[in-house]
Amino acid sequence: MWVSPNGRPLYTRAEVAEHATPEKRIWVTYGDGVYDVTDFVAIHPGGERIMLAAGRAVDPFWAVFSVHGTPETRELIEQYRIGDLVPRESDPSAAEMDSRGTGLEMLFANEPERHPSLRVRAARPCNAEAAPESLLPYVTPNELFFVRNHLPVPVIDADTFELAVEGPGIPDDFRVSVTDLKTKFPPTSVMVTLQCAGNRRAEMHAVKPVKGLQWESGAVSNAVWTGVRLRDLLAAAGYTLPDLSSAELPDGVAHVHFDGAEGYGASIPAEKALDPRGDVLIAYEMNGEPIPRDHGFPLRAVVPGHVAARSVKWLSRIALSDDESPSHWQQRDYKGFSPSATLETSDYSRAQSIQELPVQSAIVFPRPGDAVVPDKDGCVPVRGYAVSGGGRAIYRVDVSPDGGKSWIDADIVRAPDQPYGRHWAWTQWEARVPVAAAISASLSPSAAAGSSAASDAEPVGKITLVCKAVDSSYNSQPETFEGIYNVRGVLVGAWSRVPVQVKPPSEGTASGTQQHQQQHQQQHPPQR
Amino acid sequence: MWVSPNGRPLYTRAEVAEHATPEKRIWVTYGDGVYDVTDFVAIHPGGERIMLAAGRAVDPFWAVFSVHGTPETRELIEQYRIGDLVPRESDPSAAEMDSRGTGLEMLFANEPERHPSLRVRAARPCNAEAAPESLLPYVTPNELFFVRNHLPVPVIDADTFELAVEGPGIPDDFRVSVTDLKTKFPPTSVMVTLQCAGNRRAEMHAVKPVKGLQWESGAVSNAVWTGVRLRDLLAAAGYTLPDLSSAELPDGVAHVHFDGAEGYGASIPAEKALDPRGDVLIAYEMNGEPIPRDHGFPLRAVVPGHVAARSVKWLSRIALSDDESPSHWQQRDYKGFSPSATLETSDYSRAQSIQELPVQSAIVFPRPGDAVVPDKDGCVPVRGYAVSGGGRAIYRVDVSPDGGKSWIDADIVRAPDQPYGRHWAWTQWEARVPVAAAISASLSPSAAAGSSAASDAEPVGKITLVCKAVDSSYNSQPETFEGIYNVRGVLVGAWSRVPVQVKPPSEGTASGTQQHQQQHQQQHPPQR
Repeated sequence: MWVSPNGRPLYTRAEVAEHATPEKRIWVTYGDGVYDVTDFVAIHPGGERIMLAAGRAVDPFWAVFSVHGTPETRELIEQYRIGDLVPRESDPSAAEMDSRGTGLEMLFANEPERHPSLRVRAARPCNAEAAPESLLPYVTPNELFFVRNHLPVPVIDADTFELAVEGPGIPDDFRVSVTDLKTKFPPTSVMVTLQCAGNRRAEMHAVKPVKGLQWESGAVSNAVWTGVRLRDLLAAAGYTLPDLSSAELPDGVAHVHFDGAEGYGASIPAEKALDPRGDVLIAYEMNGEPIPRDHGFPLRAVVPGHVAARSVKWLSRIALSDDESPSHWQQRDYKGFSPSATLETSDYSRAQSIQELPVQSAIVFPRPGDAVVPDKDGCVPVRGYAVSGGGRAIYRVDVSPDGGKSWIDADIVRAPDQPYGRHWAWTQWEARVPVAAAISASLSPSAAAGSSAASDAEPVGKITLVCKAVDSSYNSQPETFEGIYNVRGVLVGAWSRVPVQVKPPSEGTASGTQQHQQQHQQQHPPQR
Repeated sequence: MWVSPNGRPLYTRAEVAEHATPEKRIWVTYGDGVYDVTDFVAIHPGGERIMLAAGRAVDPFWAVFSVHGTPETRELIEQYRIGDLVPRESDPSAAEMDSRGTGLEMLFANEPERHPSLRVRAARPCNAEAAPESLLPYVTPNELFFVRNHLPVPVIDADTFELAVEGPGIPDDFRVSVTDLKTKFPPTSVMVTLQCAGNRRAEMHAVKPVKGLQWESGAVSNAVWTGVRLRDLLAAAGYTLPDLSSAELPDGVAHVHFDGAEGYGASIPAEKALDPRGDVLIAYEMNGEPIPRDHGFPLRAVVPGHVAARSVKWLSRIALSDDESPSHWQQRDYKGFSPSATLETSDYSRAQSIQELPVQSAIVFPRPGDAVVPDKDGCVPVRGYAVSGGGRAIYRVDVSPDGGKSWIDADIVRAPDQPYGRHWAWTQWEARVPVAAAISASLSPSAAAGSSAASDAEPVGKITLVCKAVDSSYNSQPETFEGIYNVRGVLVGAWSRVPVQVKPPSEGTASGTQQHQQQHQQQHPPQR
């Protein structure tokens, strides 16, 4: 037997591959290490999935299951180390990973089909944002709704699936079937916009690099969710709903955990979960259809006004607890940090979980770099969305043709029948923005220098369109990304800035921007 | 009789003064006009107060009662015009206003005594902010609490005072005495920070002029309020509390009006008023004492998380309604506008009333222009407050020694026992800010030029301290006042910037800043 310079036995990948069953012991590799994890399989938090790596490298799995990316995980696996890979086989990038492939394709063998318009930011697990055109219908069609999966999509038989509910007063083995949820409770429908914590991250990344999926402004969508009020389910399960006017909730109910069947988990404050005006649902329908597999079939928590990361898909367990969810994603992800915190200095135990989201808005059309053609009044149409957390309405959207020097009020459109403090659905807006003055300003000496660098023929001028929203607490968006910079690139709510080229009307009217506007202008709901 | 060039009769102030009783008709002047308002007295919205101006000028009263500052009011009075003042007597500024004075002193004959530390921004009615030192105790002593009065302080006999309550199901003549409130309902105490919509207006004004009282950062204070839950009072009065989980409130209860005995009025959304977690009080005590006259004796509405303008003092009437309060201050004041709106173009019918306030923070010490002396580690202490609306907690306060290039987390202090979503009391914070790097930066050529302009001996450097807060919805403050500029100067929540001079330790340790820090450091509540 060969040994490495540090005295550990050396193995080839072929030798490791022979150890893939409990009888022969279960070996895996990680980096240049070889590990016998036979005794760990039974206590692996991710369960049986570890067997997918039996006899081969765990590296590609860990790249997908980001929960492993901690010093603690690395310390843990070192306890099982039995040797090293021979040097020529220890480069993880060279190992795709052995002749049988990485094994990852087995994890993702059951992904649903997806609409080709979705803009994929990561293929496995699927993370794909809504195309700009898909942000124009007020209610996003299911197949165009952004997809943000942390793990492979699980295969679930709704006929036999059961949701576990745990908490004070609830019998230990309480389970509820999908059929029971549909037939034994009054159905409630709520229109809720879900937004990823990292929506617009690419814009922050362009200012200073951040870690995470490069979302543009399409990691947000809006749907009507139908299901059972969480309050009602908890009461039916045996939990006694507390008097919400008292200063403290009873012991054991500070947080409500949601666990997904695929391994994801999160929690929300119990006050939100139990609030009769909180509208937290255990949903089984999305826009009148069974929830699609990518969005949580058969059951999904829907937590209006909170970051989408708390609306857990493939919901398999609800638990009341004194503490937040122990899940990696609750404890070590989805928190905000100061601009000066680095990946190394971010103190997750001190920072607070993201729950309600801050005020946000984005210009959807025109797109950055588009050529726009003013109408006879010198105006161009600008469209976008705005949304805030915590049920706060959007009170105003300001749109500027000149980078923020002057502003006009946009016309705003939102779903009717949203009670005060329960504006869970986004606002769409449109403004006819006068660009004439902005063009004049752009022809000042400094701006003209930039204009002359354009390659298109005869640009009339370059301008920067800006939008910013104000919510019903009169919170406003910060001007720039620098002040809200955080190394994970979450909570990306700075002013939306879109540089465009203004062209003379004689160059025709078939610009992409105008096509988008015409195509979708009928899709607003009727009420202002 | 003389006549003016436009054919109207001319009168002297002496002639007008003869008409001050119903028998002789009641005349007033406004500008150069003479008006016979005898028939208007009975329908004057301000009631008998109009008689204070009988026989003299209304100009000084209208300057105080800003409700008159509308085109509608001017149209109204013109209907009663009977003539003009003789030209030599028509200058309102020359007329203080006749030999009997303006009459205003009678309105303000019963003002309470006030603590000399209060910083008066307007004397009549009294508008005075808390001194910086008064912002350091976590609970503001009553006599140091900022005063914002819209009208003279009324004289009220608590023994005979009654509060009217009106709404569906409530008997027409329902009244409740102060004694009944104190003895027939369970007392509830809530710690609530009240902040004026115009707090920090002077900082915005310095960037671009705005209209309003020149508040610095002391139009905010914190007290424990004791009284009766509005919910409980409405139920006791006969109103049936609605099911809050339903999508709509019953007819007639979209807003709750509060009218003050002095003439002020405002309203809040019924959802807030009726929310068991909203903690809206009809308060009769402030920090364990009867509410002082300046703060609403004997009864005051306290609306936690909302702009202080909705916490109506000298509360004399509560009414449920489909509409917002018709009060001038609800309809034509306390609304937010775009940076491009002017006094002329501000459309009050389109803009939304300010209710919940946005996230706010301010540096209290050091003061602008102070000299600060670093400790042996090169740090200086910086202290201030942060507060958000809607019950949102403060999650983080970032403090910068270099104008916003680098940031450190401040240590934050807040009252214990504030449930999730009910953080009605402010957060105080303190940071030891490393100024060494900032000093080096300030000695770069451009900054050094500024430094040399200082008159004090041997300044080590000039730096700008900055703070900004993040609330529990991760809303953050905007960087500058330009983007949130509004001509009334409300909602002034940009980063707090305080320029200071850093001096070498050899210049002694008795700086004002250090004295303040030592004097007040024992006054924090125990919990972080």
